[in-house]
Amino acid sequence: MAAAVVPNKKVVLKNYITGFPKETDMELVTSDTVRLKVPEGSTAVIVKNLFLSCDPYMRSRMSKHDEPSYVPDFIPGSVITGFGVSKVVDSGHPDFSAGDLVWGLTGWEEYSLITNPESLFKIKYTDVPLSYYTGLLGMPGLTAYVGFYEICAPKTGEYVFVSAASGAVGQLVGQFAKLMGCYVVGSAGSDEKVNLLKNKFGFDEAFNYKKESDLNAALKRYFPEGIDIYFENVGGAMLDAVLRNMRIHGRIAACGMISQYNLEKPEGVHNLMYTIMKRVRFEGFVVVDYYHKYNEFVEKIIPDIREGKITYVEDTAEGLENAPAALIGLFKGLNVGKQLVVVAHE
Amino acid sequence: MAAAVVPNKKVVLKNYITGFPKETDMELVTSDTVRLKVPEGSTAVIVKNLFLSCDPYMRSRMSKHDEPSYVPDFIPGSVITGFGVSKVVDSGHPDFSAGDLVWGLTGWEEYSLITNPESLFKIKYTDVPLSYYTGLLGMPGLTAYVGFYEICAPKTGEYVFVSAASGAVGQLVGQFAKLMGCYVVGSAGSDEKVNLLKNKFGFDEAFNYKKESDLNAALKRYFPEGIDIYFENVGGAMLDAVLRNMRIHGRIAACGMISQYNLEKPEGVHNLMYTIMKRVRFEGFVVVDYYHKYNEFVEKIIPDIREGKITYVEDTAEGLENAPAALIGLFKGLNVGKQLVVVAHE
Repeated sequence: MAAAVVPNKKVVLKNYITGFPKETDMELVTSDTVRLKVPEGSTAVIVKNLFLSCDPYMRSRMSKHDEPSYVPDFIPGSVITGFGVSKVVDSGHPDFSAGDLVWGLTGWEEYSLITNPESLFKIKYTDVPLSYYTGLLGMPGLTAYVGFYEICAPKTGEYVFVSAASGAVGQLVGQFAKLMGCYVVGSAGSDEKVNLLKNKFGFDEAFNYKKESDLNAALKRYFPEGIDIYFENVGGAMLDAVLRNMRIHGRIAACGMISQYNLEKPEGVHNLMYTIMKRVRFEGFVVVDYYHKYNEFVEKIIPDIREGKITYVEDTAEGLENAPAALIGLFKGLNVGKQLVVVAHE
Repeated sequence: MAAAVVPNKKVVLKNYITGFPKETDMELVTSDTVRLKVPEGSTAVIVKNLFLSCDPYMRSRMSKHDEPSYVPDFIPGSVITGFGVSKVVDSGHPDFSAGDLVWGLTGWEEYSLITNPESLFKIKYTDVPLSYYTGLLGMPGLTAYVGFYEICAPKTGEYVFVSAASGAVGQLVGQFAKLMGCYVVGSAGSDEKVNLLKNKFGFDEAFNYKKESDLNAALKRYFPEGIDIYFENVGGAMLDAVLRNMRIHGRIAACGMISQYNLEKPEGVHNLMYTIMKRVRFEGFVVVDYYHKYNEFVEKIIPDIREGKITYVEDTAEGLENAPAALIGLFKGLNVGKQLVVVAHE
């Protein structure tokens, strides 16, 4: 029987960009088709994409880098790639079978041929929303887990600050910190998000950074004794203010700097001398270095999810055609919670 | 018999300063006297100061801080304090006797009454120059030792960069790195210092940063494969250039930022995003946290000094009256090697 050949809508980057990205920098291509069978003798898999993840690091991939960056640049005219949740349609790989649910790097399209299925994670628990594997149970969840528990090395009772705190990673860091018995404050860019932090995620305090004319004063208000742990998602002026408020032997886990990604030149950070005066460790990390911890992470967090100790808020765009706007919205702070795109519900 | 009362010259800070310090911000006071006997019942000691240490961190103490800094501000009109090598003249403390040689915090004066002699280190080895206890065998030596071996966590064969590399700390870091089998490059502010780095301290390469119009290009020239370890003594533009050239999982030990101490506002550092992309650990440290390692350090380094495996260059000013100029010279980069002041030879 000949394999089905079906239409395959996809989102491509039109050209490399500088500055703030626009929806029109991407394009929905509807003219492609795909054969739903892996080539003879190949160990690839064909997947149907269900959920796609919009993540800040993707901005870097939209620009051309002269030297290789930490993630490869997108290729203009080719499908955008990113994390997603998918169902295996056909497999030439002994570890995967049709019907398997997986998460990992896939394409912003309806069906993807994945030639390195070893990079995919099989989904074990399906009694939780499958979309969680783009966030809570996927790359952002593992990021929050290793960033907080390993890089921040938290101790009960410490003072923790999280920026972009209602985002895919931040909302989890705050909840992990509360479970550890820390005092936790988050910053976010709208009153709605601040409300979520305090009333949904259990942060002790939260503030809307856009309403603060003096970030240093804001931090002093919430941390009169200083900050032990800063989970850094934004960079720039917030980082500068945090540095002035760190306590002795404080730790900063640098996860992202979303406020800087669309600037021609990043803002200057002036207060690094405080890292010496206060003996602060500032450490950048990338989650790919910690994939070996994924199973440990899932086994640890699944019971917490089932028992309602950990909650998660998602912001869902319906349909591949809305994916470009969803991604751009991330840089405008339009998303409330983890931004994802539904390509198909099953 | 009545205790001798002798003249006691001292250097005082006249007023708190901002910006670049001047010799005339300090004053030599010759009108004081001191009684060479500790008060009855006191556990203090009286010391005769032999060598005084000029250290960059002292700049911070010359300004008034609204919030307590990591080192206390000097008190205008009172004697300047700092590290020095001294001989005990009289002691009310059971652990110290007249004739003991010590190093630790003392006054910029001929004789000092030290009310907390527990803070002093007794000098055990006197077959090396006593002045070394202001540098190689004192605070700067321990700083280099813990900063390199503990904070930098070096591995054989790694690429190491040291700024202010001919200074009290830098010259040692480079030699430690060479003893570990690392490739070591140093930067300094004169051709004389560059020559010293290459021909006296055994750095693989060295450059005069004042002759480089593009620090990023200079670093790329010496580190085509990037930097594993940066021992940070200067901050500002050099740090910014280094960040762009760090290798994956690189470490930066932030010891000082002398280029920034006399600025009204520190320069902005723009390239912190590289700490994420390259998973770099940037860690500030202060040597006082490591005093418990001092004996281990001395026992380890004394044989290396005796065998000529470690060498040390000092820049010596003769006489207390030349101490203010020696301290100011540090911020102008006039010193070649560890800057110290001889108050008395015995």
